[in-house]
Amino acid sequence: MTGLSSLQTPTLVLDRLTMQRNIDMMAARARELGVPLRPHGKTPKNAEVAGQLMAAGAIGVTVSTLREAEGYFAAGVHDIFYAVALAPDKVARIGALIAAGANVTGLVDHPDAVRAIGANAVQCGTVIPVAVELDIDGYRSGLPDRDGALESLAGLIQSTAGVGFAGIMSYGGASYGCTVEQARALAETHRQALVSAHGRIEALGIPCPMVSFGSSPATLHAARMDGVTELRCGIYVFQDLFQAAIGACRIEDIAVSVLCTVIGIRPDLNRVVVDAGGLAMSKDLSTARTSSDAGYGLVCAIDGTLLPDVYMATTSQELGLLATRSGAPLPFAQMGIGTKLRILPNHADMTAAAYEQYHVVAGTTDVTAIWRRFNGW
Amino acid sequence: MTGLSSLQTPTLVLDRLTMQRNIDMMAARARELGVPLRPHGKTPKNAEVAGQLMAAGAIGVTVSTLREAEGYFAAGVHDIFYAVALAPDKVARIGALIAAGANVTGLVDHPDAVRAIGANAVQCGTVIPVAVELDIDGYRSGLPDRDGALESLAGLIQSTAGVGFAGIMSYGGASYGCTVEQARALAETHRQALVSAHGRIEALGIPCPMVSFGSSPATLHAARMDGVTELRCGIYVFQDLFQAAIGACRIEDIAVSVLCTVIGIRPDLNRVVVDAGGLAMSKDLSTARTSSDAGYGLVCAIDGTLLPDVYMATTSQELGLLATRSGAPLPFAQMGIGTKLRILPNHADMTAAAYEQYHVVAGTTDVTAIWRRFNGW
Repeated sequence: MTGLSSLQTPTLVLDRLTMQRNIDMMAARARELGVPLRPHGKTPKNAEVAGQLMAAGAIGVTVSTLREAEGYFAAGVHDIFYAVALAPDKVARIGALIAAGANVTGLVDHPDAVRAIGANAVQCGTVIPVAVELDIDGYRSGLPDRDGALESLAGLIQSTAGVGFAGIMSYGGASYGCTVEQARALAETHRQALVSAHGRIEALGIPCPMVSFGSSPATLHAARMDGVTELRCGIYVFQDLFQAAIGACRIEDIAVSVLCTVIGIRPDLNRVVVDAGGLAMSKDLSTARTSSDAGYGLVCAIDGTLLPDVYMATTSQELGLLATRSGAPLPFAQMGIGTKLRILPNHADMTAAAYEQYHVVAGTTDVTAIWRRFNGW
Repeated sequence: MTGLSSLQTPTLVLDRLTMQRNIDMMAARARELGVPLRPHGKTPKNAEVAGQLMAAGAIGVTVSTLREAEGYFAAGVHDIFYAVALAPDKVARIGALIAAGANVTGLVDHPDAVRAIGANAVQCGTVIPVAVELDIDGYRSGLPDRDGALESLAGLIQSTAGVGFAGIMSYGGASYGCTVEQARALAETHRQALVSAHGRIEALGIPCPMVSFGSSPATLHAARMDGVTELRCGIYVFQDLFQAAIGACRIEDIAVSVLCTVIGIRPDLNRVVVDAGGLAMSKDLSTARTSSDAGYGLVCAIDGTLLPDVYMATTSQELGLLATRSGAPLPFAQMGIGTKLRILPNHADMTAAAYEQYHVVAGTTDVTAIWRRFNGW
């Protein structure tokens, strides 16, 4: 059996025991809320992880790219929600999935999109079910639910050939910048807005089967989710330092790390250089906005044991420079040239995107499997 | 012929006419300095670009990963400098390249690395030529040239089986945070340090054929480079908004851009949403440190014409939110749903890393070729 110590670095390590704990935790949370999960596949982008999610009761997956949709469908997941506003010229690829037997739902938030998607779908000989994204808090995208705009868009979808009205959704992404209390309040604001919108649409005689809410931290902290039909959470599967910094997990819940090798030691500068830099970790510095700034990541021994106080302070394209947050001397005895270390990422999605595959372990340094990712678009 | 307007987005566009101007510019600059170029292949990671660089007089390539080394060698480039401190367990892959006929030089900055690399090379039945990285300014990595450390390391390399002494190098990366005047001064500091080190090593009777200096801005602004045997510049091939912000190029010299599609329009928020987000652009925010903060990138029409004042203000994983820097209304008439736009990147290396290939154009929106990248490690 291959061990982590024999791998070329940098490479991506996934501990499937830690991941399974996270999957079980959120599945239990969803049961507690009484709402099924449609986990966001943009985090793992992987067939085997999807299998674990479905086994834990997921009703399907959410995706952020069509390559994910195609990958998950090939892996046997049939119910797919592409939760990014649909560019009209992507209709043909969704039509091909539907023709092959997938249930794919698209997303819209503007009448021009509905008309263009419908026209393209008719040309492709398909009908695309579309949900409407509601902009509840001005965070990102979606239709503001005012002045009858939602009712009007739902009516347009009903009357446009090539599309069908699937329901409504919102994204509580602002919960990423929240305290636990604020995230709970945000979740309730979204829930009420979705329930209100659902009632007004059905009052028009338009069936609205999907009422979808997303974001891991808001779901974790929500007091209730009744009226919502599915929860789109993604990052909880792997967790990361940003989720830990905002109280959504513990550091020991982080399931992915970047295996790297010490290639430079400079006791005079209290610096260690590793072969994982900006490309290997991503340039995500999200924890800098929190009280737990981890630089580009926290540092563990090859067996996953955290080296307290050690972090990746700076990067260039292929180099990471390790230091201590306190300024105390680095544990140079554990960091000789050639030593392998594991770096926990700020943002698992961004870091994992640089890798074609996961080297899977299960609590030890033995590699038990290699799982491929669906990267790109 | 395919046009950009028919491509699925996000995708990466390379204008080879702009690139050729950049290649010719730096080739002329190198001739002016009287020192040949060994361009850094970590920017393009592509065989066809390497062909253009060699045709313009390059003596070989610099690489930052072994996958680049393997890719460039397969593309016919024989002289390769792997300019990242060599992890001892990467020796076998270099040995395989050498056995196949490549001239690959590795990099070291510590005696422990020399001993481990030598031992592994002997086991593999190969001899790895290694250069020593000098740390001139504490910027990143390398050996401080004091107390005889360089002479001692050169002697160790000479006397260690499995390695051979190839020369010395330094990296003027601090020039990325400099004014033009400071970059010129930095280049001269590095040059003098390298020339001094070269003289002391040769005085010991150790031949030192390679005296290698790198960084595009420092090379552009250097007053002289005599005594240096090769220049390692990379980013100039594509240029980017950060290089423009520090005065190393003009915005119209930027050869790569991300083609994306408008998927949301919100005149009430003065916002346009495109399907290129943090993964498509990278999270590199390097221009924020300059007086020309471009957010996540500047926005052009599909034909490459800059839309003045429009930039990508924020991103999520797959969404980019466009705004104006002045707060003036966005040109919504040019940004309807489905419109294709091109985003110029802050850092071309980081942005290009998300893509498997370039869609190549030559001043128009016609795609004339698809060129593959050597991603990963």
